[in-house]
Amino acid sequence: MKKRPEKNRLPAHQPCIVTLMTDFGTQDAYVGIMKGVIIGINPCVNIIDICHNIPPQDIFSGAYLLSSSYKYFPQGTVHVAVVDPGVGSKRDIVCVEINKHFFLVPDNGILSFILQEEMPKSIVRVTNNKYFLPLPSATFHGRDIFAPVAAYLSLGTKPQLLGNASDRLNQLETPTPEYTKKKRLIGAVIHIDRFGNLVTNITRKSLKYLSAPHKCLEMSIGKKKIAGLQNTYADAPAGESLFFFGSAGFLEVSVNQGNAQTYFKAKRGDKISVGIKSSVTR
Amino acid sequence: MKKRPEKNRLPAHQPCIVTLMTDFGTQDAYVGIMKGVIIGINPCVNIIDICHNIPPQDIFSGAYLLSSSYKYFPQGTVHVAVVDPGVGSKRDIVCVEINKHFFLVPDNGILSFILQEEMPKSIVRVTNNKYFLPLPSATFHGRDIFAPVAAYLSLGTKPQLLGNASDRLNQLETPTPEYTKKKRLIGAVIHIDRFGNLVTNITRKSLKYLSAPHKCLEMSIGKKKIAGLQNTYADAPAGESLFFFGSAGFLEVSVNQGNAQTYFKAKRGDKISVGIKSSVTR
Amino acid sequence: MKKRPEKNRLPAHQPCIVTLMTDFGTQDAYVGIMKGVIIGINPCVNIIDICHNIPPQDIFSGAYLLSSSYKYFPQGTVHVAVVDPGVGSKRDIVCVEINKHFFLVPDNGILSFILQEEMPKSIVRVTNNKYFLPLPSATFHGRDIFAPVAAYLSLGTKPQLLGNASDRLNQLETPTPEYTKKKRLIGAVIHIDRFGNLVTNITRKSLKYLSAPHKCLEMSIGKKKIAGLQNTYADAPAGESLFFFGSAGFLEVSVNQGNAQTYFKAKRGDKISVGIKSSVTR
Repeated sequence: MKKRPEKNRLPAHQPCIVTLMTDFGTQDAYVGIMKGVIIGINPCVNIIDICHNIPPQDIFSGAYLLSSSYKYFPQGTVHVAVVDPGVGSKRDIVCVEINKHFFLVPDNGILSFILQEEMPKSIVRVTNNKYFLPLPSATFHGRDIFAPVAAYLSLGTKPQLLGNASDRLNQLETPTPEYTKKKRLIGAVIHIDRFGNLVTNITRKSLKYLSAPHKCLEMSIGKKKIAGLQNTYADAPAGESLFFFGSAGFLEVSVNQGNAQTYFKAKRGDKISVGIKSSVTR
Repeated sequence: MKKRPEKNRLPAHQPCIVTLMTDFGTQDAYVGIMKGVIIGINPCVNIIDICHNIPPQDIFSGAYLLSSSYKYFPQGTVHVAVVDPGVGSKRDIVCVEINKHFFLVPDNGILSFILQEEMPKSIVRVTNNKYFLPLPSATFHGRDIFAPVAAYLSLGTKPQLLGNASDRLNQLETPTPEYTKKKRLIGAVIHIDRFGNLVTNITRKSLKYLSAPHKCLEMSIGKKKIAGLQNTYADAPAGESLFFFGSAGFLEVSVNQGNAQTYFKAKRGDKISVGIKSSVTR
Repeated sequence: MKKRPEKNRLPAHQPCIVTLMTDFGTQDAYVGIMKGVIIGINPCVNIIDICHNIPPQDIFSGAYLLSSSYKYFPQGTVHVAVVDPGVGSKRDIVCVEINKHFFLVPDNGILSFILQEEMPKSIVRVTNNKYFLPLPSATFHGRDIFAPVAAYLSLGTKPQLLGNASDRLNQLETPTPEYTKKKRLIGAVIHIDRFGNLVTNITRKSLKYLSAPHKCLEMSIGKKKIAGLQNTYADAPAGESLFFFGSAGFLEVSVNQGNAQTYFKAKRGDKISVGIKSSVTR
């Protein structure tokens, strides 16, 4: 690997980036309103949309997308994720520092995938209404609490000023791959993307246990089988299925220039398994 | 209420914010093209999307979203709203200053909801083609007139330079709640959001006339009734309906963690009514 | 035409604008991830979305939208278009300078419509991994190659540093209008927009050959006919069809305040023809 160009190093000053992920969709003005509040407090902020089409109240989906995206932003970025079925109830809002990124989220498990890989440096329960809009509503904390607090964080406000420290976070049950006695790895579909690619929870590390060459591996999904771990879409003829490690580091099932969701009639949660091809094991 | 943090005050300089709301959708390049024109004229502009999925030519919907969003932006913001079935016809384009916000819109009633609450400080009919793209098309004024004029406004161009002053604006018929002799308040659904929440035209002020405690109120929608005005989603069990004052200041009908639009088979314009529970009045 | 206002001239400094067009949709975090990579390298960049709802792998559609949008951005803009069914295969990535705009695209024909009008000044095959993310994946070049290279271009990196010069580009077959012996011009629908407007490949230039007054022209689509070339939607009564030259410079078929796609049951590729009204030629 050659030396990286100069500019690839992080700038010395704190970048003022706020990312937004919500389940607010794009048919209302909710996201725009949040941006108005943020920019009113920090006119120099750089607001980046991650996704606003999280299915309504689907914390699991938000958790996956957040974990797959945050690390591509500079350290110091403030990540706001509002998938918040408990808004207005007693659920807390937390500011969590992980690997020099700041997450401002409802304490409902939306950090679950990230916490499988990283330890939080600090957790603060956000209660200091000095950083909220005046008279926050009970139903739109995105506008009244998340947006202004994110703006202050992007200005350099220390998380410790937002409320009391904490040492626990609610977590979702996230499926982990399991081995069968017959040396098969059982995983599950955790995300289906726009192209119909099926992202599973199987990592390179978990697959190593099978210790077989790529071409000897076989994946089963429903009653169908795919032979041989590949590298990329084009390794299969157009219209044919394949499996490979996708860009998020997980095993994915695809159809080259097609749609694996339709092809396999798959949905999130479906089981898949990987083993060694029977012709090889016999 | 505690003292607000320093940074909550508006910056001394004019902020260069342009908000965009259109019915252009997200499958074409129309919105991107408008942004290219704006940024070519004002490279320092901050462009914020409010919503581009207004149903085609649905001025009413645009009017509602504009009124619910503009006030969360700093004063000096230029708000562009292009829901414009009359493009290329004799309809005017107006620049309206309201409460130190600048609205650049077709004169077709898209400011109707705002004008129920606020008086315009000035109205200018935009005719000075010095601020247009050369040779404007008859079908894409968003690109050829709205975008460049908004960019000049964001640079500090005075609205008075854009054309002649005016003292009238076209307005939509917007429904207002009415009282029956039996002391019921009849309102209508004016917006349905992504979550299926039904936003009505009933404000806190209009409900005061009933002068009953929250728990004694009862809402009727179709043949269904909901008892007791609540505060937030979580005040109803998951899957059950409730009504409360939403974040835009209007009475809303919701299903906690569900979808009231589906639940009540509701559509915009549907009547709802609020009264005092019969067991109480008897 | 009056003298243009001062600010309409391009600023002296290189503007740091990157436009993004993809078929990634808006239900995943892919676009947000690309933005994170870009902004990590160039914190001052201005990223503008053109469209992310290109139908999956529909290069033709991307090619049309790119050609209709790029010219409205300032010179120096970096245009990234990732509609890339061949990702991970042997297809090249190219950086093409056209009319002082920089295009960073897969070499799969996505520049075809632009190349009908403009000659490239330079073509570079992008191979210098110094400008890539470390260890690029085989399936998400948008994140690992396009985003970082675009960021460096926006910082002023010369295209020549990205790889070797080339003198050819792959191109799509794009339909061109043809004349029949009976003096009719046969064209095709090349794009259908959100409003159901049918954009054809017929330009003003190609129509001149008929040399007839606008009112004497007649368009045929399927078994239906429309008489008289118009200027804008409002030239037809509401609900009636018309044809006119649209904002992209092509002949379009519309229904005033309606949807021509539904009205004519039209799809991309459908033939349309323009000729002189029979009552006139007889």
